[in-house]
Amino acid sequence: MTMTAAPSTDATASSDFENHPLQSVFAPKSVAVIGVTPTPDTVPYDIFHNILTSGYRGTVYPIAPGKRNICAVKAYRYVLDIEDDVDQAVIVFPANVVERALEQCGQKGIKSAIVISAGFREVGAKGLVREKRLVDICREYGISMIGPNCLGVINTDPKVQLNASFARKMPDEGRIAFLSQSGALCTAVLDYAREKGIGFSKFVSFGNKAGVTEIELFDYLHNDPQTDVILLYLEELRDGRGLIEAARRVTRGDNAKPILAIKSGRTPQGADAASSHTGSLAGEDPVCDAVFREAGIIRVASIEQLFNSAILYAYQPMPSGDRLAIVTNAGGPGVMATDAAVRVGLSIPRFNEDTTAKLKAALPATANVKNPVDVIGDARADRYGAAVQAVLDDPNVDQALVILTPQSMTDIDSIAKGVCQLHETASKPIACSFMGAADVGSGIHLLQKSHIPHYILPEWACEAMADVQRIRHWREQPIGDIEALDVDRATVESILSSADEGYLSEDRSLSIMGAYGLPVPAHRLCTTADQAVAAADQFGYPVVLRVISPQIVHKSEVHGVALDLASADAVRAAFDEMWRRVSELMPEAEITGLLVRPMIPDGYEVILGAKRDPSFGPTVMFGLGGIYVELFKDVTFGLAPLDRHTAARMVQQVKACRLLEGARGRVCSDIEGIQDCLVRVGQLINDFDRILELDVNPLIAGPMNKGNMVADVRIRLAGV
Amino acid sequence: MTMTAAPSTDATASSDFENHPLQSVFAPKSVAVIGVTPTPDTVPYDIFHNILTSGYRGTVYPIAPGKRNICAVKAYRYVLDIEDDVDQAVIVFPANVVERALEQCGQKGIKSAIVISAGFREVGAKGLVREKRLVDICREYGISMIGPNCLGVINTDPKVQLNASFARKMPDEGRIAFLSQSGALCTAVLDYAREKGIGFSKFVSFGNKAGVTEIELFDYLHNDPQTDVILLYLEELRDGRGLIEAARRVTRGDNAKPILAIKSGRTPQGADAASSHTGSLAGEDPVCDAVFREAGIIRVASIEQLFNSAILYAYQPMPSGDRLAIVTNAGGPGVMATDAAVRVGLSIPRFNEDTTAKLKAALPATANVKNPVDVIGDARADRYGAAVQAVLDDPNVDQALVILTPQSMTDIDSIAKGVCQLHETASKPIACSFMGAADVGSGIHLLQKSHIPHYILPEWACEAMADVQRIRHWREQPIGDIEALDVDRATVESILSSADEGYLSEDRSLSIMGAYGLPVPAHRLCTTADQAVAAADQFGYPVVLRVISPQIVHKSEVHGVALDLASADAVRAAFDEMWRRVSELMPEAEITGLLVRPMIPDGYEVILGAKRDPSFGPTVMFGLGGIYVELFKDVTFGLAPLDRHTAARMVQQVKACRLLEGARGRVCSDIEGIQDCLVRVGQLINDFDRILELDVNPLIAGPMNKGNMVADVRIRLAGV
Repeated sequence: MTMTAAPSTDATASSDFENHPLQSVFAPKSVAVIGVTPTPDTVPYDIFHNILTSGYRGTVYPIAPGKRNICAVKAYRYVLDIEDDVDQAVIVFPANVVERALEQCGQKGIKSAIVISAGFREVGAKGLVREKRLVDICREYGISMIGPNCLGVINTDPKVQLNASFARKMPDEGRIAFLSQSGALCTAVLDYAREKGIGFSKFVSFGNKAGVTEIELFDYLHNDPQTDVILLYLEELRDGRGLIEAARRVTRGDNAKPILAIKSGRTPQGADAASSHTGSLAGEDPVCDAVFREAGIIRVASIEQLFNSAILYAYQPMPSGDRLAIVTNAGGPGVMATDAAVRVGLSIPRFNEDTTAKLKAALPATANVKNPVDVIGDARADRYGAAVQAVLDDPNVDQALVILTPQSMTDIDSIAKGVCQLHETASKPIACSFMGAADVGSGIHLLQKSHIPHYILPEWACEAMADVQRIRHWREQPIGDIEALDVDRATVESILSSADEGYLSEDRSLSIMGAYGLPVPAHRLCTTADQAVAAADQFGYPVVLRVISPQIVHKSEVHGVALDLASADAVRAAFDEMWRRVSELMPEAEITGLLVRPMIPDGYEVILGAKRDPSFGPTVMFGLGGIYVELFKDVTFGLAPLDRHTAARMVQQVKACRLLEGARGRVCSDIEGIQDCLVRVGQLINDFDRILELDVNPLIAGPMNKGNMVADVRIRLAGV
Repeated sequence: MTMTAAPSTDATASSDFENHPLQSVFAPKSVAVIGVTPTPDTVPYDIFHNILTSGYRGTVYPIAPGKRNICAVKAYRYVLDIEDDVDQAVIVFPANVVERALEQCGQKGIKSAIVISAGFREVGAKGLVREKRLVDICREYGISMIGPNCLGVINTDPKVQLNASFARKMPDEGRIAFLSQSGALCTAVLDYAREKGIGFSKFVSFGNKAGVTEIELFDYLHNDPQTDVILLYLEELRDGRGLIEAARRVTRGDNAKPILAIKSGRTPQGADAASSHTGSLAGEDPVCDAVFREAGIIRVASIEQLFNSAILYAYQPMPSGDRLAIVTNAGGPGVMATDAAVRVGLSIPRFNEDTTAKLKAALPATANVKNPVDVIGDARADRYGAAVQAVLDDPNVDQALVILTPQSMTDIDSIAKGVCQLHETASKPIACSFMGAADVGSGIHLLQKSHIPHYILPEWACEAMADVQRIRHWREQPIGDIEALDVDRATVESILSSADEGYLSEDRSLSIMGAYGLPVPAHRLCTTADQAVAAADQFGYPVVLRVISPQIVHKSEVHGVALDLASADAVRAAFDEMWRRVSELMPEAEITGLLVRPMIPDGYEVILGAKRDPSFGPTVMFGLGGIYVELFKDVTFGLAPLDRHTAARMVQQVKACRLLEGARGRVCSDIEGIQDCLVRVGQLINDFDRILELDVNPLIAGPMNKGNMVADVRIRLAGV
């Protein structure tokens, strides 16, 4: 059988792994369950019983004040009473006594604690105080804590076999790790996965993640030789930046493992529901989407998709391309699969002559020997076998999907066995869709036993294949280093040091942009018409006049903008007129001066934004003109600072970028210049914490050799 | 128990139904199976055996030349040998002898034939000839034929109980009719539906649809009192226009029944696959999407969605709005469901005070009493019951989704029974998602038995609810009559009578537009500079000059366009210059003249198109400017002729329409005028078969009171 694509870690890495701080969480030599009761079907009892009966290789001690024994195992009053060393505590006491129990764990020298108990952060302020005390104790004693408010931890490694959770049954061993912030979801997932024959390496419900978070779990699983793929269900991004950095380490490089994630709270209403449930602070979902993509996290929409993609990756080799061959005994599903494949970005190659000849020889005259291959309704295992073998041998094919509907002649189990045999020698991935339920049940079971991914609908197989393509592309995608840019930090520091909270004036904003190397127009703040004319003479006509005042945000509403002033007289007249009208319209506004700058030639309007996201920190945004952003949401986001490759991808991902590339017979814009601006804006917001938000709206994208120009910019600052 | 939303037909309708020509297909009093063999597990045997053993209320006769009996039933050599009247023949002979058998059926007076045999249109030209002969025989004898190349027909009506198919098992009785062009898909669907407890009223595999098509089946099922909802799997639109007209009759009005459909071949590659499999001619998929929507056909993407939506409609009352209450014992799935609901367009209402008070009284303090309601992991049936009852009673709630994950305290079956009880008195729809597999299996079974739609994923429940909203909106949506427009047909007739195949000249195209009441600029075709100056004097300056020549398609490439000519001298100079340059650059071009017309003021560029679609006939297209259409595919389509309501919806559906409405501080355009142009363009292509294609590109949309103007138009004609 072909094994999974991810290479196993070498000997050194493996010894490092044995010393990983989270080993005490997953592979403790002894466990104390604190707060056990003798009543079956209660959480405290179930956890102890699960550890005792799931084949755990270490020693388990029940802490049950007032009881002599639990399930015939000697019970203790306190963890401190245990004569031997204890590695791990699983705490199921009510919330108000967890603190005391944890303190004793520290005194006992216990290295990890799984706090199942609820009643912490998720119940409000009082609970949060209690939770913080747990964190303090863990810090004091060096305890790795999972939870509180979680289902527990499962490790199926035969050397450990620990079910420190109240899940009803231990899952099968497998190469998939599942991490979930929702404990309740875990019970459903375990039940669901068992039905599909899916096993797990590690299964972690991390609840309120007051101690160990998904970020440390990523690092552990990255090194875990039992794990090939990491699945995550997440509601709350407490350290989005840390998550992204960890994900990048895990998903690329020699020991790359993919991360597939559901991040719920995608809609404002969903985020509200998540926040009333976890007390989390939500960033914007399109930002999360973009940032996950740039961190190699495959974001999926449902539990079904999560596992559909995971089993394909975990059970099959990595395909070398996106070309899919389909073999079916039913034309309709073949067409549906073709539609689905194309929709998700796979290609449906033509077969070469050799393959076509083989198919013609093996199939009846009425069969379709083109892709998708229709072996016709009365096909039996021999015909399927010949067809699947032929398409897998074709150099134009990277992977195969075998579709079957249960017709009267169909020998389903034999066909399944045939596919399993082919799979043993195949170097390309195979997935199957035996459509139906009971009639195809035993065939599906045979496939699952041989680790051939099976999907009731061929469409799902195609979606999973598309996710695997995403994993492949991410690994191959270039990511550069963050460059040290030639910028004038001192100028920005000096401007910021004299600036208050709120919006910065236009002249100072332009100076900051200029200091960071963005193309800004020549400009001068003038308080007299003479100064303005002198500036215009120097810059060249025509020029623009713009009012500068801390009280004026929307300049054009107070007639504070004059365009296309073509002569000294025009400048002089406009200067006096503007000063007079603005003073009349807004007598309370203090006019700092009028800004003179040259007219900027026409070009496409591009928006560059930067913002501190509550989850991800400094982010950069790119889009074209107002209408594309507003109506079509045609924007992309990236984490600041940006490398040049990422900036290039951000520009490419915007559909309207085709305009910049010269669509519709226009000249090409200076796209490389725009990428440079993005990198510089990212550097700027990253360098100065006081910059909360920054909008270059618009940057005028001129033709290729003429370059770009900042036409307007607004910067919002935090207080000092 | 609340019954389905669709009202049953009255007594008169029912008697009409008894005389429906397709009654002989679905409710024959006697059936002859022609071509039976005595070998089990072959199609001919299986069909006879299925009819014999599925409880058929009529008489079945095997036609098996050379056999005395089949399954102990007396066999005949020819259908003509049967002593009694026969209503229906099921023909399973090889393709080459079907014709002779069908001829004998006609002689015997048989009214319907189900031709299972393959080897017709789907195998190429020879098969098509054979198929046409069958059609001729059916026409001659008045036989309603299903197939050829199909699985057969099933009617679960207890008064009939006919399984005239080679499906392995008879499905349960139900309120859903399933029609499929793919026979192979049927076997999978039957297996799948059985697992989900889904029953059928009628089940039809119509194969090559040489005789009875989906259109006639729609009409029959519309009148069938056993059917509430119609599901369709379609690969080939042979008479798209007829399908749409039939669908509109079925899906609206007093006896409205929804149609949900998969139309495969959505992508060019899928359409290729479908065409090599059915020999069909594919129209464009976005056209199909739009046209289905305007015919009330809910187009879905997969078999899963087809049934997910069908059971919700068939089993539950029609909700009066889109407001969804969610009750869950697991926060995470509650958030995911909220996300999914909002994404598909449902709303998540706030509860009123009364409901909140009831929830607070019934649930523990740590529960979330806001929507989505979290009854907390240890909830049992009492808590679920109180919460679901409370939210259903809230006037702000139109429907409820009950989510459950199997946690240690969860009494799954009791909760299911509680929901079933609530359902009996509830007037609002309830759907459930018991997440998992084996652990929740018996609970799911209880729900299915009570016809409460169940979905493994809450997201699917939301998608099904969104489809039901679509059904509701479609029924409420206004559709006007096609108006008799005040147009000048005679002018168009006269222009067309003198025009050849291909593109019509610009002056004649403009005249046609004018004759049909579209706003065209004044224009005159001139052959001398004096004429041009006279025209310009009359129209007013500035004017435009454009070359007219049958050989010149791209005017600007040969300098055949001059803009903004502001004086008589300018017109004269440009006239001579253009005639000279064009003659030099394209000496072979015959210049008909130069067209003079006034400059059109600025405005948004709008595209109105009309085209004969191979499936749907004359269609109309609407979109804004080149870039929105090209990059964002922001266009809509409609069937010509259009009523005004549909034209208004077409304009609204285009996202860039917000620009016309005055987004970004611009003035409003004359949207009603654009709608009028769409109606007129639709009328034009509908009135004249020779118009193959027509593009008004652009129509300049002026401000509200200034009106619109055709700036350029191209019309392509068929030969006479």
